[in-house]
Amino acid sequence: MCHYPVLLNDERTANLFPPDAIARARQFMSDNSSGLGAYSHSMGLPSIREEVAAFLAARDGHPASPENIFLTDGASTGIQRIMTLMIRNERDGIMTPIPQYPLYSASIALLGGRQVGYFLDEQHNWGLTVEELQRSLTQARNSGVNVRALVVINPNNPTGGILTEQNMRDIVDFCAKEHLVLLADEVYQENVYRPDARFISFKKVLRDMGPQYDGFELASFHSISKGFLGECGYRGGITELVGFDASVKAEAYKLASLGLCSNVAGQLMVSLMVNPPKPGDPSYALYVKERDNILASLKRRATKLVAALNKLEGFSCNEADGAMYTFPQVRLPEKAVAAAHAAHKQPDTFYCLQLLENTGICVVPGSGFGQVDGTYHFRTTFLPPEDEIDQVVERMAAFHSRFMLEYK
Amino acid sequence: MCHYPVLLNDERTANLFPPDAIARARQFMSDNSSGLGAYSHSMGLPSIREEVAAFLAARDGHPASPENIFLTDGASTGIQRIMTLMIRNERDGIMTPIPQYPLYSASIALLGGRQVGYFLDEQHNWGLTVEELQRSLTQARNSGVNVRALVVINPNNPTGGILTEQNMRDIVDFCAKEHLVLLADEVYQENVYRPDARFISFKKVLRDMGPQYDGFELASFHSISKGFLGECGYRGGITELVGFDASVKAEAYKLASLGLCSNVAGQLMVSLMVNPPKPGDPSYALYVKERDNILASLKRRATKLVAALNKLEGFSCNEADGAMYTFPQVRLPEKAVAAAHAAHKQPDTFYCLQLLENTGICVVPGSGFGQVDGTYHFRTTFLPPEDEIDQVVERMAAFHSRFMLEYK
Repeated sequence: MCHYPVLLNDERTANLFPPDAIARARQFMSDNSSGLGAYSHSMGLPSIREEVAAFLAARDGHPASPENIFLTDGASTGIQRIMTLMIRNERDGIMTPIPQYPLYSASIALLGGRQVGYFLDEQHNWGLTVEELQRSLTQARNSGVNVRALVVINPNNPTGGILTEQNMRDIVDFCAKEHLVLLADEVYQENVYRPDARFISFKKVLRDMGPQYDGFELASFHSISKGFLGECGYRGGITELVGFDASVKAEAYKLASLGLCSNVAGQLMVSLMVNPPKPGDPSYALYVKERDNILASLKRRATKLVAALNKLEGFSCNEADGAMYTFPQVRLPEKAVAAAHAAHKQPDTFYCLQLLENTGICVVPGSGFGQVDGTYHFRTTFLPPEDEIDQVVERMAAFHSRFMLEYK
Repeated sequence: MCHYPVLLNDERTANLFPPDAIARARQFMSDNSSGLGAYSHSMGLPSIREEVAAFLAARDGHPASPENIFLTDGASTGIQRIMTLMIRNERDGIMTPIPQYPLYSASIALLGGRQVGYFLDEQHNWGLTVEELQRSLTQARNSGVNVRALVVINPNNPTGGILTEQNMRDIVDFCAKEHLVLLADEVYQENVYRPDARFISFKKVLRDMGPQYDGFELASFHSISKGFLGECGYRGGITELVGFDASVKAEAYKLASLGLCSNVAGQLMVSLMVNPPKPGDPSYALYVKERDNILASLKRRATKLVAALNKLEGFSCNEADGAMYTFPQVRLPEKAVAAAHAAHKQPDTFYCLQLLENTGICVVPGSGFGQVDGTYHFRTTFLPPEDEIDQVVERMAAFHSRFMLEYK
């Protein structure tokens, strides 16, 4: 029983929302007469996949097709589904960065495949080198792993790093040469803070490289949960499949059909992200103001947090160029490492739990993301409200001094 | 950026919605200050799991705990997750009815397990007998399958059948004796049309059977997509785990965490389903009227459709006691079967495609659900609007006459 049309035609609604929002709702109901309460196409509502395709084409300067786009319950579902397609048996391997977002390691373990880690270079602002990709791939192949795909997270979770365009071209060439599918996790594409950096999609880089790469297989992921929307509870995600054979897309469609469809309210939120108010619309000024305020505030918080962390004894923290995180390294005294082992805990977990218990501040131990053996990190966000960041930083500093005093 | 509180405190909103709806929204925001836009606990919002537990306790007359309840993106996600826990390797088997809802066969195939079918008895109103369960189990075990769980769909999709309480007790005893986990798909629990039938949950039957069954493992599934709400686009589902070891629940929680959380709007819809307007609330009369109208209309449509189908030459169709479907058998002439094979199609698919092409009416071939070899069925719903059902029935009858004339 859908009551939206009644509300949309009620003059009291017109008093409550700006006219472009009401026009947008009318257009949605005209394109999708069943509203939010009915199952959609398993790939997502066609009208919204059209909007996503238009957004991708405008972003990249290259065509995109609604037939290659899947709307999913958050990017997580899309990523798990592509991993399901990639991993056939226990010899199939997926290359992931170290550190990495644990969805990847967990999905690979669940599907019974092999995680093939490549290290990001902490000394060089968490950079990604083709030499390290080659080292990792060769080692995996030599031990009998059938490496099928490479995961790149850009901007990066948890490090906050952003790739250069030349680096991205080298990665595409590496995948082409080694016959790897490229899985591009680009959910932080709006979260770029370094003045001389900008987000470029792998789709754009690939298509800019010309028609000799037409057969290249790329899956890219986007989300409503990051950027400046942060509407993560609605679970809206986008997967674009580029260059895949029709039979592979058919299998992806079958996997999507198993759960019938992603939630339609989340799909609508995707529509609002990819097709926001335009210049001239009544809501445009407010939209721009809120967007710019949120992104500027995130940037200020990132700068403040990194500067504060770098002042702490034993800490080193790269700049947060993008995403929503920093991944500082903390050199723990030997006595702290010994105390952690005595408590049957990883040293980074030991440190993070003490921080939580003493300050109420929750950060995530680096061992959950992966790190070079013998180094200790944690991931922290700069999402706390700006007026609380100073206090967060102060409490962390006070705790850290006491911790170092106790274990030095 | 959450604007709900602003709207909730705007007097123009008060003109647009009844006071109990506004009070409900205020309560939700008070329990869950992050609203719909933030991630929830991976098992679902605690306040809503409390409401679900209260609903289950009132329904069954036995306690339920929010700690055993998972809110999921539709029941489908919950079912797939439990199947993931059950199937470890290619020798693990899951018993499913034949016919069955294809989510089960597809999930089992995807997870690499074995589907162990037991036949429902079409001659006896699609009944489920323990003798057939035993035959199927013994045969599977004799061929080396490690049978782990039994799926029961009640009320049944696609047959429309409803189990008796005695039958359910026998099924529980069978599972207890054979050490099988019982997976109870109870998403059609509100859809009961036969006057002398009523829905009883397996949880109630199990707990009524006494404390000697305390160790029995039952997973039951419910949904906002059926009943009289039918809000399937919101993807809201409930899984209750009964009698499982804490370590199994921990694994289920881990699987839920992989996708962070189910969509929060769908969780809120679950809250509205399990905790509807109460007598005395301003919305109660309208709620009761809409609920009763929808269920009464579904019942009239079911009766009309089954009667009409049974008048067609070669058709036999059991009463639709519950759910939203009937699964008529159609005896196809030999010439039609031969024409189907010549066209490389299953005979039931051949018939359904001809029906679709000639009338625009879409039904689902029985071969997708499973059926006794050499019999042909299709699943049809009685969901078309009541004023269109007569026309649907007329067009089907006219098509069927022409089809029989052509192939007899």
